Amino acid sequence: MPTVLVTAGPTREHLDEVRFLTNASTGRMGYAIAAAAHAAGCEVVLVTGPTHLTPPAGVTDVQVVSALEMLAACERALARADIVFGVAAVADHRPRARHAGKPAKNDAPYSLELVPNPDILASLARVKGRRVFVGFSLDAQAADASAQRERARRKLERKGLDLIVVNDSSALGAERSAVTVLDAGGHDYALPPQDKEATAAWLVQLALARWRTRVDEASP
Amino acid sequence: MPTVLVTAGPTREHLDEVRFLTNASTGRMGYAIAAAAHAAGCEVVLVTGPTHLTPPAGVTDVQVVSALEMLAACERALARADIVFGVAAVADHRPRARHAGKPAKNDAPYSLELVPNPDILASLARVKGRRVFVGFSLDAQAADASAQRERARRKLERKGLDLIVVNDSSALGAERSAVTVLDAGGHDYALPPQDKEATAAWLVQLALARWRTRVDEASP
Repeated sequence: MPTVLVTAGPTREHLDEVRFLTNASTGRMGYAIAAAAHAAGCEVVLVTGPTHLTPPAGVTDVQVVSALEMLAACERALARADIVFGVAAVADHRPRARHAGKPAKNDAPYSLELVPNPDILASLARVKGRRVFVGFSLDAQAADASAQRERARRKLERKGLDLIVVNDSSALGAERSAVTVLDAGGHDYALPPQDKEATAAWLVQLALARWRTRVDEASP
Repeated sequence: MPTVLVTAGPTREHLDEVRFLTNASTGRMGYAIAAAAHAAGCEVVLVTGPTHLTPPAGVTDVQVVSALEMLAACERALARADIVFGVAAVADHRPRARHAGKPAKNDAPYSLELVPNPDILASLARVKGRRVFVGFSLDAQAADASAQRERARRKLERKGLDLIVVNDSSALGAERSAVTVLDAGGHDYALPPQDKEATAAWLVQLALARWRTRVDEASP
């Protein structure tokens, strides 16, 4: 069985010891995928930002805080990974500087300088080999579903992914959500609204099927 | 018995629908104080930022997200409050503008304009009457304990508080912590390291004693 690398949760981008930029990702979908992959017989490495969840039994978890730490942990785990699920809601930007301690209260307006974080999944996918890469696309501009799919497809192509899972920001913290999956071959799969565990199990089976096809094609 | 208003948890200051500035406050100390005040026979209003805790049974809770929402909720609750515990780790600043939705990913550095939030406890203490106000001071620059107490005492005086509880940032998320309490009369009380429930019960008894003294002094 293949080894599965899953990123999950938010990242925290600290301004100082106390304050940070983050988002409301609970990590539930990533943890559900890690559990589903383990249940399917895979070895699983879960690289996770801060969440209130307990890692699934049998899964190797690596706890990180920031996007840079998450990238470093993923790079260490990539060599033995066959399937990569990038589920973490990684902060796009981090403060340019992190101050030591908690600066004294400052009652004036100020400008916080932010710099872009690396795109973790795109960075890992540059050394793709025969790995299967699955990305997630959170899109709050969901008024037009076909434009949303178009944006996700461009993201899939730009990052070199095999599959991308599209949901809107109502999925953050939600128990149930409906997702659409796009593949690199141009197909769409619309999943019904269901809990994250059911969606996770389905996504793991889809990724496993892709990986098996790729391994079979590579065989002499 | 007096009515007790408690603020708890972090606040979230949104940049857009998804991203926000916050801190790692769990809300545990504020919730413990609300529970202890209820156990002591007080009516309790708990104004709380986002946490993973369940409000104590018998306590009226008001869920808020941002510092401005917390201030508005406290102002509504203040009229019937006799003792105010400001335990929330309120964000000092918020983004000047909140964008609708989640803006598309932006790969360039940028400056985030931040403006100061109101000081909730100082703002409430301007209409003090015979209320007892208890503040908390989180101080990460804890190398020098006497300088730390000095800063806390200035904060107590500037905000018009009766008591201030000093702990260092190791208390954020910790199960046990040692705190020092300063009062407006110039006294210090050093509590031993103990769990937050024990500290909370002690602080509630101290505030109740101050409130009873004040009520007695005001009687003819």
